Amino acid sequence: MFMDIDSALSHVKKVLAEVRVYNHACATLSFDQETICPSKAMQEQGEVSAFLSNKAFTLQKDEKYLAACRYVHMHRDELTNDFDRALEESLYRDYIREKNITPAMQHEASLIYNRAYVNWLNAKKAKDFSIFAPSLKEVRDISLRDVQLNEKRKPLAYDTIFDGYERGLTSADLDATFNKCKERLVPLLKKIVASKKKIRTDFLSRIVTDEAQTKMSRYLLETMGFDFERGAFTTTEHPFTSELGKNDVRVTTHYYPNMFYSSMFSIIHEGGHALFEQNQPNENFEHFIEYNKTMGMHESTSRFYENRIGRSKEFIHLIYPKTCELFPEAMHDVSEQEFYEAMNTVSPSLIRTEADEFTYTFHVIIRYEIEKMIVDGGVEIADLPRIWNDKYEEYLGVRPSNDAEGILQDVHWSSGFGYFPTYALGNMYNAMYYNKMREDFDLDAAVLAGDFKQINGWMTENVWKCADRVDPKTWIKGITGRDFTPDDFLDYLEKKYSEIYEL
Amino acid sequence: MFMDIDSALSHVKKVLAEVRVYNHACATLSFDQETICPSKAMQEQGEVSAFLSNKAFTLQKDEKYLAACRYVHMHRDELTNDFDRALEESLYRDYIREKNITPAMQHEASLIYNRAYVNWLNAKKAKDFSIFAPSLKEVRDISLRDVQLNEKRKPLAYDTIFDGYERGLTSADLDATFNKCKERLVPLLKKIVASKKKIRTDFLSRIVTDEAQTKMSRYLLETMGFDFERGAFTTTEHPFTSELGKNDVRVTTHYYPNMFYSSMFSIIHEGGHALFEQNQPNENFEHFIEYNKTMGMHESTSRFYENRIGRSKEFIHLIYPKTCELFPEAMHDVSEQEFYEAMNTVSPSLIRTEADEFTYTFHVIIRYEIEKMIVDGGVEIADLPRIWNDKYEEYLGVRPSNDAEGILQDVHWSSGFGYFPTYALGNMYNAMYYNKMREDFDLDAAVLAGDFKQINGWMTENVWKCADRVDPKTWIKGITGRDFTPDDFLDYLEKKYSEIYEL
Repeated sequence: MFMDIDSALSHVKKVLAEVRVYNHACATLSFDQETICPSKAMQEQGEVSAFLSNKAFTLQKDEKYLAACRYVHMHRDELTNDFDRALEESLYRDYIREKNITPAMQHEASLIYNRAYVNWLNAKKAKDFSIFAPSLKEVRDISLRDVQLNEKRKPLAYDTIFDGYERGLTSADLDATFNKCKERLVPLLKKIVASKKKIRTDFLSRIVTDEAQTKMSRYLLETMGFDFERGAFTTTEHPFTSELGKNDVRVTTHYYPNMFYSSMFSIIHEGGHALFEQNQPNENFEHFIEYNKTMGMHESTSRFYENRIGRSKEFIHLIYPKTCELFPEAMHDVSEQEFYEAMNTVSPSLIRTEADEFTYTFHVIIRYEIEKMIVDGGVEIADLPRIWNDKYEEYLGVRPSNDAEGILQDVHWSSGFGYFPTYALGNMYNAMYYNKMREDFDLDAAVLAGDFKQINGWMTENVWKCADRVDPKTWIKGITGRDFTPDDFLDYLEKKYSEIYEL
Repeated sequence: MFMDIDSALSHVKKVLAEVRVYNHACATLSFDQETICPSKAMQEQGEVSAFLSNKAFTLQKDEKYLAACRYVHMHRDELTNDFDRALEESLYRDYIREKNITPAMQHEASLIYNRAYVNWLNAKKAKDFSIFAPSLKEVRDISLRDVQLNEKRKPLAYDTIFDGYERGLTSADLDATFNKCKERLVPLLKKIVASKKKIRTDFLSRIVTDEAQTKMSRYLLETMGFDFERGAFTTTEHPFTSELGKNDVRVTTHYYPNMFYSSMFSIIHEGGHALFEQNQPNENFEHFIEYNKTMGMHESTSRFYENRIGRSKEFIHLIYPKTCELFPEAMHDVSEQEFYEAMNTVSPSLIRTEADEFTYTFHVIIRYEIEKMIVDGGVEIADLPRIWNDKYEEYLGVRPSNDAEGILQDVHWSSGFGYFPTYALGNMYNAMYYNKMREDFDLDAAVLAGDFKQINGWMTENVWKCADRVDPKTWIKGITGRDFTPDDFLDYLEKKYSEIYEL
């Protein structure tokens, strides 16, 4: 059917351009569902999405398209640049994963995920896991079915799924990493909780209007270098970042009147994701390199801005005056040092997205351990709320009083499993490249001066343009010269929090 | 190909169900463009829309579908209910209008309209008509091309186009109607302007926050009976109503801090459109009766709520306490009578959407006269700003100082011509059925009591469920027993404003 690599590759790209159009529409529909779609319209909107994503899926099941993909794969030695090689690798991977999945199966899955999302919303509102439980079972079953249909599946279903988020890493890597975390962080957390250091937190619950918080969000995004002509921000229940198109990256946040700092760090976090997308090189778009080999790389960025930059003494110094100006009622009697310490309080708590930098990793470990039980452990779905609550009590000494602040707090499981560990890996990746960055230029001086051009320039070169070009282990070794390790992250936590809590 | 009416009709409906999915996606994309889409993403978003609307168009060009439509048309006597008969009529009409338009032509038109919208935005921002002029030429040319391709076109291109909005009415009807308006309203306007009556308006420019105006918008929509589970509201530059799906009707508004009443009447207007959509009978959805035979009927609803209800003494009495409560800084020293008179001030001005009920008709007449010149009059596009400004000076005694407050103020011409007269017709239709409604029940008492169930029930029965079932002349005669006339509307204006201005 195809006689040369150019015509095969050009057919592939023609089809992918059309797939991208459907994906753009689906991303817009999904953004709409999360931001403004009325409750009784969710079902219909979800059906429209399912229809369009099925069209995209069907395009990639076309015989001529598949023949072109096979031709490109068999003649991959003739490809002339790294971008096309990265595309080929990702296409072949998708091909293997999806070759046994029919459009009808994919359509069924879309409907299940959409129903699960709606049921999750309702369950969370009613604080009742049993409303979500049947959907969670369906999501588990469809995930396991897809694993079964994957010819290159690994012995553990979880590893097959997780490889889609973090290529080349397995649950063995995660177990080793998280065990190290537990070994070093559990005793340290005990010391912190027992510390006599008093951190002032009274002002944190002072009321700040949505309007003032909106101004702060805009200021923070501007400071970071977010491009408002190619992006937007608004509010949602659960903050997220969405790339609708090449020039359209959106972030959302949530304003709590009595937790003004919450939206600040949420917007810095999502702003980090957005910078990743807004600074993708044009070549990645032209070559359809859109399927990340490492979501941990993405999370490393958002958590780099949120924690390594955002909660640093230098950044707090930079934004302290503006914070006092925009939130005078909350900040009028708060010193810069008090503000810094309050933004770095360690306090075991129930909600992951509100967790402090130190205890955050425990939230991830709990989810990871439960995911594994769901996927490979044959656990009873009905038992999960109890298991969840027990783990919170064991690791953090706190116990949810209802499912909304327990197992229902996160949306993720309405669309599958395996994402959570990438949050923790992100912290570990950025701890490694943070140390390298400091060797390359005076990072503290740049933050103090609000010079995000220099910081974002380094990130573009070493992080963002690597997206989907290499697997995470190769990437992190390539830019730091060292093998992946959680030690940099654990050393950082130990040093920073020993100082703050005067241990 | 088809042997019986049932299978032909069922094939038609199957295709239309798919068309509806594409239309739903396009409506969502368009809503997104108007509300949050970043500037540099507009082009890409527009291309996605054009692609999807072309898919919908192509479905309706399919040979089997067209054969089914033709079969249904030829065997229309066998149809068993009015809904299917209305569908058949509208399909046949679309068929005639579009049979000579290829998918490629339709795609070209989509791109032109999208480009025109973006250029209009930029031109309005720059207050410079010359930025929009090339697009306006393109829109005119594509409109005339579509008229040429319509085998049942009328002698005047304008009449062919206008028939798509108001079936059975022509520019001869409009000329006669508008001449009557000019005859009666011009002398009356002179008397009003010369009147010695002092209406207090100082408080109208007092500052009211967006937050308070948002609360007012919600209160007004709730009062009217808007269903928030099947609808939403947000802000846009140019307020509009959009029906995305059966359970998804959205209205938008615009907050000016120094014109609090502007968003109030804008939300009541759009709320009227929304009630029309939210109260469509289920059968209209099931039978795909979605192409209105009269947009004037739609506008009659929005303007009924905005003016006949919204600016009445009874409604002002109903909402006066809440207005004082939500806008204390603006309303603390304003009596109910002062508020009523201020909401009914006649003041010739430049902006249609801000115009008072009395001078509004002149804004429409000006646009109608210019539209006719564009479509059938061979006018030079470059001359339009001058013509526009001259007409404002002639009819209203005011002259725009730039294009943004002149010819660029409305978005409509970026997607074609012929809509404006339906606003004025809407006023005339509702003046006729308002009088009938008063015969049927005590409307004043219902408004005073905030009993919108009764009002909306009457409207459902006599207006909303007639959508696309009859042409406007038949409809208005059917519910009032009288032929269409602007007299009821002119009588109403004369009586109301003679009283307010003590003429």
